[in-house]
Amino acid sequence: MSEIKQGVSDSAVPKLADLEPGWVWLVGAGPGDPGLLTLLATRALAQADVVVFDALVDERILDLINPGAERIFAGKRGGRPSANQDDISRQLVALAQDGKRVARLKGGDPCIFGRGGEEALALARAGIPFRIVPGVTAGVGALAYAGIPATHRDAGPAITFITGHATGSNVPDNLNWQALAGGSPTLVIYMGLSHLGRICAAIRDAGRAGDEPVAVICKATTAAQSVLVTTLERAEDDARTAALKPPALIVVGPIVRFRDELAWFEQLVHAGAD
Amino acid sequence: MSEIKQGVSDSAVPKLADLEPGWVWLVGAGPGDPGLLTLLATRALAQADVVVFDALVDERILDLINPGAERIFAGKRGGRPSANQDDISRQLVALAQDGKRVARLKGGDPCIFGRGGEEALALARAGIPFRIVPGVTAGVGALAYAGIPATHRDAGPAITFITGHATGSNVPDNLNWQALAGGSPTLVIYMGLSHLGRICAAIRDAGRAGDEPVAVICKATTAAQSVLVTTLERAEDDARTAALKPPALIVVGPIVRFRDELAWFEQLVHAGAD
Repeated sequence: MSEIKQGVSDSAVPKLADLEPGWVWLVGAGPGDPGLLTLLATRALAQADVVVFDALVDERILDLINPGAERIFAGKRGGRPSANQDDISRQLVALAQDGKRVARLKGGDPCIFGRGGEEALALARAGIPFRIVPGVTAGVGALAYAGIPATHRDAGPAITFITGHATGSNVPDNLNWQALAGGSPTLVIYMGLSHLGRICAAIRDAGRAGDEPVAVICKATTAAQSVLVTTLERAEDDARTAALKPPALIVVGPIVRFRDELAWFEQLVHAGAD
Repeated sequence: MSEIKQGVSDSAVPKLADLEPGWVWLVGAGPGDPGLLTLLATRALAQADVVVFDALVDERILDLINPGAERIFAGKRGGRPSANQDDISRQLVALAQDGKRVARLKGGDPCIFGRGGEEALALARAGIPFRIVPGVTAGVGALAYAGIPATHRDAGPAITFITGHATGSNVPDNLNWQALAGGSPTLVIYMGLSHLGRICAAIRDAGRAGDEPVAVICKATTAAQSVLVTTLERAEDDARTAALKPPALIVVGPIVRFRDELAWFEQLVHAGAD
């Protein structure tokens, strides 16, 4: 029965676009679990002549790149200034002009703090045809795997995604924490681990309670996923004690409490069933 | 060459979890384009005994459900009160207790304004094993296909997703538009088309300029996708003139201007290449 059903799976794949020579696809790889790749992302990895990939793409996903493709690492590891963005864009243009099928692979979604927009603009201005293949962003995927629903009727009608990492490794100075913390019951901060203390202090200064729950999700959607549940006032100390390392996603808001009942993924991993 | 590469694609699919009897998978179907289904979502459709689906799931995705599966429509069409949520949750529990492999299929991501959290809680409390399969939410996927990057360095470090539709078909009354509009340069409003005028007025009252750009994206990621670009002060009139119909996503912020250069998807559709 199970085999019959898998046969159905193989035959029922929809007709998809082809990654053609001279094109660039800006592809989201999702948060880590290869099962969260989209069909178009999988196709890009199978058809590309060149894959230009970032540091945050999971190894198991890189394993899906066809063996004949050239791999170019364009990673910007956390903490480094990202002065190379123009070089990356120029390289994508050059590869496409050379007639290659180019997959530009980014962790999560290419346009949620992934600078996909900048690369798309460079391609458009150079006359290179491109496609954006959106992916499951960490703010959606990591929360789901941490047993924290991104939204819930009881937790309010909005969720805000924020980058905690600006050029030069600082917290962005153009963030209005007062407004963000006042408007959005759930705040999801990407790449903010090294500024966790300052971020939590800013949110408290904006009027949120010190005992409001905070979750720090590390290595989301992988077997090594860890979730630290703490509070705004204890987060910095607790993260230091736990020696947390990036990549990490910070979630602030009452929504974190749902994890008490919904931590399904760790149960699977502990049962060896992932 | 192309055929060889497609062969690679088939063999390189990663090992995925199975949807087992007695389990429920809460599955995001993405914004419409079947190419944006995740591998786990495709697997759920291939293996399910029963698929319980919502109104917003694209027909081409329903076509991927294995022919032997029972299909149950649980849609809550826009404008109706959603009093049936408890019934849906009870049905999921009953189907799983009956030993079925249950796929609960929702448009976009199950937890971004999809009430996946409520269903997960019902399953957890009934002792039903479940998995959440996150999907590409409209706020990510529709923007990408509209040529509007969800974030861009020049457009600020935050993006907020808001539901424009509360129980009883009203704009949620617990939204602090003053704070939301002050904190987040980009506001993405789900299910807000019928309240477009009131929403834009609230954002202007919060201090955003009347000529700030607004995009209304309808039928995102399908061949029928349309994008109306307007402003906060003209949006209501323009949407009425264009006779827009849901499903629609509203995007407010300077980020909308990038569409002038990045409207890649309509170019593909017009070229017949989608």
